[in-house]
Amino acid sequence: MKPVVVVHGGAGSIVKEYEEGYISGVSQAALKGYEALKNGSNALKAVEEAVIVMEDDPHFNAGYGSVLNQEGDIEMDAIIMDGKNLMSGAVSAVRCIANPITLARLVMEKTDHVLLTCKGASQFAKSQGIPEVPTAKLITERSRERWKKNLAPGSNPLKLQLGLGTVGAVAIDGEGNVACATSTGGISNKMVGRVGDTSCIGSGGYADNAIGAVSTTGDGESIMKVVLARLILYHMEQGKTPEEATDAGLDYMKTRVDGYGGAIVINHRGEWAARFSTKQMTWAAVKDGQLQTGVYQGKVETETENPRDDHLHLH
Amino acid sequence: MKPVVVVHGGAGSIVKEYEEGYISGVSQAALKGYEALKNGSNALKAVEEAVIVMEDDPHFNAGYGSVLNQEGDIEMDAIIMDGKNLMSGAVSAVRCIANPITLARLVMEKTDHVLLTCKGASQFAKSQGIPEVPTAKLITERSRERWKKNLAPGSNPLKLQLGLGTVGAVAIDGEGNVACATSTGGISNKMVGRVGDTSCIGSGGYADNAIGAVSTTGDGESIMKVVLARLILYHMEQGKTPEEATDAGLDYMKTRVDGYGGAIVINHRGEWAARFSTKQMTWAAVKDGQLQTGVYQGKVETETENPRDDHLHLH
Repeated sequence: MKPVVVVHGGAGSIVKEYEEGYISGVSQAALKGYEALKNGSNALKAVEEAVIVMEDDPHFNAGYGSVLNQEGDIEMDAIIMDGKNLMSGAVSAVRCIANPITLARLVMEKTDHVLLTCKGASQFAKSQGIPEVPTAKLITERSRERWKKNLAPGSNPLKLQLGLGTVGAVAIDGEGNVACATSTGGISNKMVGRVGDTSCIGSGGYADNAIGAVSTTGDGESIMKVVLARLILYHMEQGKTPEEATDAGLDYMKTRVDGYGGAIVINHRGEWAARFSTKQMTWAAVKDGQLQTGVYQGKVETETENPRDDHLHLH
Repeated sequence: MKPVVVVHGGAGSIVKEYEEGYISGVSQAALKGYEALKNGSNALKAVEEAVIVMEDDPHFNAGYGSVLNQEGDIEMDAIIMDGKNLMSGAVSAVRCIANPITLARLVMEKTDHVLLTCKGASQFAKSQGIPEVPTAKLITERSRERWKKNLAPGSNPLKLQLGLGTVGAVAIDGEGNVACATSTGGISNKMVGRVGDTSCIGSGGYADNAIGAVSTTGDGESIMKVVLARLILYHMEQGKTPEEATDAGLDYMKTRVDGYGGAIVINHRGEWAARFSTKQMTWAAVKDGQLQTGVYQGKVETETENPRDDHLHLH
């Protein structure tokens, strides 16, 4: 099986001035995941590494750069899933760590549980030697400004949310294992303790070697109501291509619960799709050493890696 | 449409001395839900009322009588879902309230969110005027003893968990609306912040008027890995009866992730099933004024209500 990595940097409406930063961010994430696969890492490691790149990048609403809740605090959700055995790890409403996706992976590997929340997730992080990062160090000027604007009477946090994206990755490795990872700061000015789709298995992501893997983004509450990631995989089980299955899932979410979003999808043959019902979604994919990126409906940019260059990079 | 209510009091292995109490508890819960439907309440109200009966009953691992986490504290999860519009409300790791299912319903009705966790859920409960109940008042002697035994070196919490069941209900009302509700204290001696399947939409429950409703119980981490409630409904969408669909879901969970559990299921025609892959599951159902209960595989007790008696009761 040829290795493939697809990542997204969130569905919504991109602010033009940040577009280049987003595309650069998802490209670096996808190349990082692909490099891991080329170096023999499995799909699970590849999606974790790709997501870490975006958690560390202030452009994205995950890790550093996460949006603030109504109290001005950062509470993050993340999930990772291994398609080989359906093992999964997730955290919800976790505070004061740089990389929630790594903590989710540790929940999967070091506990008998699938999901740890809030204070319990922090206790576990400490027990694993993960350094505590003060919330102030995870806040960007942009997140804080957005939060302040949302506090004004008559503001529309959902509108101001636009362009602040959840991140995610799906991959298939040389042995045919698929995996998914998703990480987010949630919705700006959300209620304390609000948990969205990301940490909810089947909604924010799902991976099964027999079918494929999905990572979702968009209106979290709508994604949960239709259990979007699992829904897309059911359509693939029924014979649809990744593109057809994703469109069917997104169409159903729009008509049934008036919800908009996007997803990156890979099937067990390495065919992939990046689809969205929102205005935009930043994404990047690497297959056969070729990097493709996109932001707008129907538009794909393609760059080819230098085959002589061992270390993959952007040209 | 004839109203129908089905409830469960948890899958596992029932301690003989409590069997009568369990059967009485699920019977009262089912009759309470059925009475609500007969009095014109919708399916959503019926499942909430049925679950409250079991949360208040110390036999069950939900509300009063919940198991203790590793620190001797009680953290509860609950979900409720309305099949009409896929609206849902849930809470996870919530402390110090008597009826998590009612808080879940308020999350659905009073917020823009689907799931609130931990401290945020408590803050919301307070804002809704829900009285705070000290953890000590939710603890039964039996839960505390179990917890203490599990602290001993070499103990097996999962074995001692047997017979302490999550509770749940599904219903269909006169207008053909279906709903589900599930509530639990989780696993005895669980890590602080462990969240299981119950509050995870699609795993602990799912309801869709176009298909039916499901509430699950059993090995929570396994239920999450296969997104059991939604899986059972997919099988029903493919034409299976509630019984066939539930068995297919439970069989898959057993073979794919070595997990055991049970589910109560109703379809949009009011046909229902109560099935389990564990040794036992306490359940009760009321349809056509007839109460049926069960604990063991293949054994059903039937009692008929007195048609002259306005107030349904056990004979």
